[in-house]
Amino acid sequence: MAAPKKVAIVGSGNWGSAISKIIGLNAQGSSNFDTTVNMWVFEEMIDGEKLSEIINTRHENVKYLPGEKLPENVVAITSVVESVKDADILIFVLPHQFVKGVCEQIKGHVKPGAFACSLIKGVDATQGGIQLVSRIIYKTLGMDVSVLMGANIASEVARGDFCESTLGSRNADNAQLLYELFHRDHFRISITQDAATVEVCGAIKNIIAIAAGFCDGLGYGSSTKAAVMRIGMMEMWQFATNYYKGVQLGTFLESCGFSDVIATCYGGRNRKVAEAFVTANKTIEELEKEMLNGQKLQGPLASYEVHQLLKKEDKEKDYPLMTAVYRICYEGAPVTDFLKMI
Amino acid sequence: MAAPKKVAIVGSGNWGSAISKIIGLNAQGSSNFDTTVNMWVFEEMIDGEKLSEIINTRHENVKYLPGEKLPENVVAITSVVESVKDADILIFVLPHQFVKGVCEQIKGHVKPGAFACSLIKGVDATQGGIQLVSRIIYKTLGMDVSVLMGANIASEVARGDFCESTLGSRNADNAQLLYELFHRDHFRISITQDAATVEVCGAIKNIIAIAAGFCDGLGYGSSTKAAVMRIGMMEMWQFATNYYKGVQLGTFLESCGFSDVIATCYGGRNRKVAEAFVTANKTIEELEKEMLNGQKLQGPLASYEVHQLLKKEDKEKDYPLMTAVYRICYEGAPVTDFLKMI
Repeated sequence: MAAPKKVAIVGSGNWGSAISKIIGLNAQGSSNFDTTVNMWVFEEMIDGEKLSEIINTRHENVKYLPGEKLPENVVAITSVVESVKDADILIFVLPHQFVKGVCEQIKGHVKPGAFACSLIKGVDATQGGIQLVSRIIYKTLGMDVSVLMGANIASEVARGDFCESTLGSRNADNAQLLYELFHRDHFRISITQDAATVEVCGAIKNIIAIAAGFCDGLGYGSSTKAAVMRIGMMEMWQFATNYYKGVQLGTFLESCGFSDVIATCYGGRNRKVAEAFVTANKTIEELEKEMLNGQKLQGPLASYEVHQLLKKEDKEKDYPLMTAVYRICYEGAPVTDFLKMI
Repeated sequence: MAAPKKVAIVGSGNWGSAISKIIGLNAQGSSNFDTTVNMWVFEEMIDGEKLSEIINTRHENVKYLPGEKLPENVVAITSVVESVKDADILIFVLPHQFVKGVCEQIKGHVKPGAFACSLIKGVDATQGGIQLVSRIIYKTLGMDVSVLMGANIASEVARGDFCESTLGSRNADNAQLLYELFHRDHFRISITQDAATVEVCGAIKNIIAIAAGFCDGLGYGSSTKAAVMRIGMMEMWQFATNYYKGVQLGTFLESCGFSDVIATCYGGRNRKVAEAFVTANKTIEELEKEMLNGQKLQGPLASYEVHQLLKKEDKEKDYPLMTAVYRICYEGAPVTDFLKMI
C-alpha cells in the first residue's frame, strides 16, 4: 500500500473554507490520505484575535465562512511554505491575482512528485494571448495540475446541499485520488480528461453572466435571456475549440458548463452588477466601489483579457457576444444596442 | 419559379396567435408564399361577437393574445377542413390532446404534396410505448412533418423580443421553406436533421421543470437547482439516444434543449405548480384546479407517459429523476425524499 497522501489547501477564503469541510471529512475517512489537512491562512486580526488561532481552536472561519464548523483535522498554518512543504496534493483556492506570487514563494519548497488541483476561476492576459491559471501553476512549479469547477456556491456546499462538480484531469491516477478527496454523496464529482474546457468554462461563464445581467437590466424575459445564455455557451465552445486541444462537446453539458452557466446567470454578482449597470446608469468601476467594496468584478476583466487576444488575431467578429460585453464595459458602447451587437 | 406556397396555421391559441404574427409578416415579404395565410379558429363567442370575426376585422385575438395586432393577411377560418384544403404547408399549433381528432377530420382533404410542421409539445402514451406528436400527424396524414421548438414564450415572441428556435426537419427542401417562413432578425432559427431530439426536448423539459420546482419549493439554492436541471438534461439525452435514431449531442445545446430547459425551469407554470406542491402540501390535481382552472399540467402527464414505457421495459433505475417525479406526483412518494431518489 502507498503511504497516505498529505493534503494542503492553499487558501482559506469563502470557497476554500467550504471545500475544506469536504476535504477534511474525506481525509478522515480514507486510508489514502493523511488525516491532518493543512490549510494556509493569510493571517488577519479579528477583534483582537488571530484568524488562524480562531480556526485552530473554535474550528470556524469567522470572517469568510461564519456559522459553519470546519472539521478539526483541518489545521490553519500561516506560512504558505510551511503549509505545503510536506504535501503530496496541493489544492489551490485563492484569488486569481495572488496565484503567481504564491507559486513563486513556494517554488523549491514543494515535495517531488506532488501534484495540484486548482479551484481558481479566471484567465490571465499575457503578451502572447491568455493563460489559464493551471498553466501558471504548472509553469512555476512543474507539477501536474488538475482543475475542479462547477455550479458550487460556497455557502450551499458548506451547508451540505446537494450539488455537482467537474474534475478535469489529464492524469488518471491523480484524478482517482482527487475524486476520493472531493466526492461525497451530496457533492457529486464527474471526471473528464478535457481539463482545458473545464477551466475555460470557469473563466468565460462570467462574461456570459454580464450579458445575462444586461438582459435583466433591459427588462427582457426568459426567452431572450435563455437565447443570450446559449449564444454565450456557443462562443465559449468555439473559443475552447480554437485555442485548446481535445475539447469535447460533452464537457459543456457537465456541471462546469451547463450548470455553472445557469447558476452564474441567475445568481451571482456578475449578473447583479451588470443589471445595475443598465438600470443605475453608472460605470462598472463606480458599481464595483458601491456594490463590491471596490473589488474587481471578474466578468468585465475576463472580457477584457479575452478581447486582447481576439483583437490581436482579428477575430472579434467571430465572438459577437464577448466583443459586445467588452465594448459596453470598456468602450462606452450603449448597452441598449446589446442585442443588435450579437 | 415554383408557385407560391399556401400556408395554413392549424390552431389559434396563445402560441398559434403569436407565431401567426411572424408567419404573416414573412408570407407578405416573400414570393415563395401566398400572401394570404389561413388560420383555423375554433369558434367562440366573446361578449356576443364571434372570435373569428373579431380577428378578421380588428386583427386581434382578444381572447388568447390580447393587445397584439395580427397581420391583416392572417385570415381566420372556422372550418378546419376549409382552412387546410388548399394549403401546401400546415403549421400545427393546438393543444396536444386535440391533434389526433383534428388530423382525422382533415384526412382526405389535404392537398397532395403538402407537408407539415408541428409546434406542439408533448408525447402520447400508446400500448407499444410513447409516440411523438409529429408521428401522430404523419401516421394519419402521411405527410412529411418537421418540428419547431425552443425557448419561446408566446407573449415575448409576439412583442418582437429577441429569441431563438430550433427547426428539426428530415427534408432539406421543406426545412428551407420553413426557415423562410419562421426566421426573422428577432426570431433566429437554426436547422437540424435531428428532429426526434428536438421534439423529445419539447416533451421532457416539462418533467425537468417539475423537478426544478420541487427544488424551489424545498428551499434549495442555485447550485442544487442547476445540478438537478443537468441531471434532467442527461436523462433526456439518454432517453432520446435509447429510443430514437440519429440523436446528436449538439442538439441539446440548441434552443430546444439548453435554452428551453432554462426558460421552463425558471419561468413557466410547471415549475410554479411544482413549487406550490411542496409549499402548499396539496395534490397536483388540487393545484391544477386552483392555479390552472382545472387544466392538466404537462410535466406530470409527461412523467406518467414516460413512466409507463420505462416500467414496461424495467428501466426505471436508469432514469432516477424522471422516475422520482412520477412517484412523487402519482404514487405519494414524499417530495422531501426527492434528492435522495436521484
